[in-house]
Amino acid sequence: MKIESVDFFYLSMPEVLDIGDGSQDALLVRIRAGGHEGWGECEASPLTSIASYVCPTSHSACKPLKSSVEGRPVNDIKDIRKISQLVHEQSLDLLQADHTLSGIDIALYDLLGRLKNVPVFDLLGYKKVYPKIPYASQLFADTPEETFEKAKRTRADGFRAVKFGWGPFGKNISNDVDHLNAAREGAGPEMLLMIDAGTVWGDDVQEAASRLKALEEVNAYWLEEPFFNLSLQAYQSLSNVSQKVPLAGGEGCSNEAQARAMIDHGGIGFIQIDAGRVGGITAAHRLVKYASEKNVQYVNHTFTSNLALSASLQPYAGVDNFKISEYPVELKQLAKDIGNEKIERDAEGYIHVPQGAGLGVSVNIENLRKYIVDVEIKVQGKVIYQTPAN
Amino acid sequence: MKIESVDFFYLSMPEVLDIGDGSQDALLVRIRAGGHEGWGECEASPLTSIASYVCPTSHSACKPLKSSVEGRPVNDIKDIRKISQLVHEQSLDLLQADHTLSGIDIALYDLLGRLKNVPVFDLLGYKKVYPKIPYASQLFADTPEETFEKAKRTRADGFRAVKFGWGPFGKNISNDVDHLNAAREGAGPEMLLMIDAGTVWGDDVQEAASRLKALEEVNAYWLEEPFFNLSLQAYQSLSNVSQKVPLAGGEGCSNEAQARAMIDHGGIGFIQIDAGRVGGITAAHRLVKYASEKNVQYVNHTFTSNLALSASLQPYAGVDNFKISEYPVELKQLAKDIGNEKIERDAEGYIHVPQGAGLGVSVNIENLRKYIVDVEIKVQGKVIYQTPAN
Repeated sequence: MKIESVDFFYLSMPEVLDIGDGSQDALLVRIRAGGHEGWGECEASPLTSIASYVCPTSHSACKPLKSSVEGRPVNDIKDIRKISQLVHEQSLDLLQADHTLSGIDIALYDLLGRLKNVPVFDLLGYKKVYPKIPYASQLFADTPEETFEKAKRTRADGFRAVKFGWGPFGKNISNDVDHLNAAREGAGPEMLLMIDAGTVWGDDVQEAASRLKALEEVNAYWLEEPFFNLSLQAYQSLSNVSQKVPLAGGEGCSNEAQARAMIDHGGIGFIQIDAGRVGGITAAHRLVKYASEKNVQYVNHTFTSNLALSASLQPYAGVDNFKISEYPVELKQLAKDIGNEKIERDAEGYIHVPQGAGLGVSVNIENLRKYIVDVEIKVQGKVIYQTPAN
Repeated sequence: MKIESVDFFYLSMPEVLDIGDGSQDALLVRIRAGGHEGWGECEASPLTSIASYVCPTSHSACKPLKSSVEGRPVNDIKDIRKISQLVHEQSLDLLQADHTLSGIDIALYDLLGRLKNVPVFDLLGYKKVYPKIPYASQLFADTPEETFEKAKRTRADGFRAVKFGWGPFGKNISNDVDHLNAAREGAGPEMLLMIDAGTVWGDDVQEAASRLKALEEVNAYWLEEPFFNLSLQAYQSLSNVSQKVPLAGGEGCSNEAQARAMIDHGGIGFIQIDAGRVGGITAAHRLVKYASEKNVQYVNHTFTSNLALSASLQPYAGVDNFKISEYPVELKQLAKDIGNEKIERDAEGYIHVPQGAGLGVSVNIENLRKYIVDVEIKVQGKVIYQTPAN
């Protein structure tokens, strides 16, 4: 079975707001073979990723991704791994490559699962899968009062865990303390409470360390992304002085080597992997094994659609020890509309990886037509990309 | 003084060959302010970098680079650092951002130097600059006989150092040994001989280690990029067993944090920084200081024009201890034509950072018109980028 077509669809809300909400646009990848189609989603900057797929070759290690994908066989997961390896060799110097590869790799797994009529986790060798505790992932509100209300609503909604991040957090310590206390108060004493600093302190260990006491007092389950991705020294230094609050990070990793570096040298307790950035399910699944060996907890990073959530759950669905899952609760309508099937909590508040073939979440592009952003790229007068008609 | 315009020019040879020669195309950036213009060059995949400059915003941490650059003040190097920081915050989730920023940052330094009529190294605080030993950087030939001839010619040409890389190297040990011996034989016993494996062994330490004896026997000055960038464990493991041949790497680093990780955890003797990839002169100059503190030798990575070579030399021009410089000798005509001024060896075989204002290498885009690749990008029917008319 050979890949017959690869199509990219750039979708966006009519208005993109200046907030840390990654669900406002999306880049979907559709790959067809043998009468089936698989779908994947790339995180971030759709136009740039499209350009990386179709760009002219710069040299032997800087080719467009299409040269490693189109027409290749896809009969088992070895074929998908081969495509991943080929992209890394042939697009070595194309920085955007891993984000684009991520959506392609996810779509290939979805396609292969549908061709074989099994879920992706089955392709990965998992015979049994385990429920995850979803944390309601959301942005800090503008005021502590509103953060309190958000936390209270999340608790009333039956969540076992909640995360607040970005927004005003990190810029003023007294305001941060107010938001932290408000979050804990609203969430009540039982819920897991995660805090996401959204890289706000760059690599300033002191700024981060000055928040540890307040984080301990609200019994924070983790402190996420205090620093820019791969600021290993800063992560390690903060980890050394943080007695009770483990660090989480890694969503910015765009390949396995970067995530291994964070695990080995960042002193983190939780490695957060976005399958839509790290190179897809191939890379994410390898990192699940690596995190297990290193006694670091693996958690998905997902702030977009249920298609992306399924892709992020599959790599660690069969590992009972890794219990936590990011679950976005403030998705824009676009991200809600992407998957036909929904991943909802059960009566006990857990989520389950879909049991359907492939990712178990299908896409009907006709239903998404109103979100499509029409793109045309011409090089030397020749159209090298245009939004597919259907 | 405010930035008045930022223009990108995609240049290419009429035919791009499937070889590891990065001088076959180029992306130039021109920034104008106060009656002057500065030029920079981004490494690799021009179309993708252009897209990252003009793409629509995805969210608050995934904006096009133009939103952090256009209209900003540029009165001293603090302003340039501020732009760099802003790009990192506002384009955090845009993977291609650092390659694009690199050309912008270089152009801003060139512009500021011309506005103040001083060389870039002066802006960086260097009162004195030192000559560098250029190594003639070239690809392995297809056969050992041809590699021998290339080495011999390089010696006859008066170079003190030579590097061979890529091509057939790394795929077959006996063929590798033949190429290594041929290179040393052609170069003679005195010349420094560097070997570049071009990431051919992925992260396979055994494959790399099996070449150490042959590398020692030809007295290799370093072994470069045995593995993919940031494969820290592989680098460290190989470094532990390599008694006489230090490792070199880092050209793939696209920000400071990655390069610091390589220095701290890769066991390398030489950190190779491409100012056109790592975030420009701002990031490169910080890494010069960091490498000094860590007793790792800093070397430029440059495989393109003299404009890029000057940008790569400026950050460490004032450090006498860092003596080696990559000097490409197989440039395609395009790369030769980019700079009006040339960086040539002196009678003793050394090169010197240009003394002219800014980078000391100017660009006349009219002379390069035949290389221009015409690009047009339309989003929702609106042209968001087209190649500047002049």
